[in-house]
Amino acid sequence: MNYTVIKSDKIFSGKVFDIKVDEIEYDSGIGGRREVVIHPGGAVALPLTDEGKIIMVKQFRYPFQQRVLELPAGKLDEGEDPQICAVRELEEETGYKSGKVRKLGAIYTSPGFCSEILHIYLVEDLTKGKHNREEGEVDMEVLELSLEEIEEKIVTGEIVDSKTICGIHYYRLFREGKY
Amino acid sequence: MNYTVIKSDKIFSGKVFDIKVDEIEYDSGIGGRREVVIHPGGAVALPLTDEGKIIMVKQFRYPFQQRVLELPAGKLDEGEDPQICAVRELEEETGYKSGKVRKLGAIYTSPGFCSEILHIYLVEDLTKGKHNREEGEVDMEVLELSLEEIEEKIVTGEIVDSKTICGIHYYRLFREGKY
Repeated sequence: MNYTVIKSDKIFSGKVFDIKVDEIEYDSGIGGRREVVIHPGGAVALPLTDEGKIIMVKQFRYPFQQRVLELPAGKLDEGEDPQICAVRELEEETGYKSGKVRKLGAIYTSPGFCSEILHIYLVEDLTKGKHNREEGEVDMEVLELSLEEIEEKIVTGEIVDSKTICGIHYYRLFREGKY
Repeated sequence: MNYTVIKSDKIFSGKVFDIKVDEIEYDSGIGGRREVVIHPGGAVALPLTDEGKIIMVKQFRYPFQQRVLELPAGKLDEGEDPQICAVRELEEETGYKSGKVRKLGAIYTSPGFCSEILHIYLVEDLTKGKHNREEGEVDMEVLELSLEEIEEKIVTGEIVDSKTICGIHYYRLFREGKY
């Protein structure tokens, strides 16, 4: 792009994200403004049981005041490797420990205004342990669903979470031998 | 959830999104804080040519300082119907007018902290017109790709945009007769 940043202000530093607002000027002379949510990124587990079921969590999501059905996921701790994060979040949220992890891909959740990247991993050879949820996750429900059940819920609109639908798409491509 | 909102502050009102920060208290007595990006939502077009190609756009995305390959999409104007928005954005960005539109689904891009919902439409019976891009979209590139080419780019990581991968997943389910 042919522009110059005239001014950049960090207008909010939060626990989950920061906000910066940049004033820019295109070479044409026209001015613009860019509002950016700066997010540390996160990791997502697609946990596959030996029986071919996928483990999901249903949890209350504050922005929607609604329980949302998703793959287990969480925010990266500072400097944390995304693969470590995926395995950690899976165990914290569901109790499952993983034996085998494979990267499927990474997504930009909302590239127009937000820097969040989510790294998605296929996690296999699971062993059941005890979960260790944070406050605010206490009512989390753990479900095991087949790919067919999940795709049915995508069509009916019961599954709407973007990282989950992307993860399921990667998993289909994986099953078709494309990875 | 069992909590009470103690305090809610709108700490930023932007052009693209607003930010609110809520202080909450769980019934257990433990306090919490919720940072929320309030976004008006948007619409996405999955434009399918008579030859079975999908029309995509490649554009500079400020948060990543990078050109990103995506389905055509845009933010809802106030009170705008998402289907009207999908058709409008498609024409503005690519010049294509649509004859037939079908809803595929809606996604929550980042439900942990952001209220954005994107509505995704299959758009067919296209006729070529003239695009009408905004400043900042002037270097946008329009591409026609087959489903196979797109899925190859998802596997290699050349396509990383979540709404695009979700749209492609809906489209596969649609082709399999699931809609």
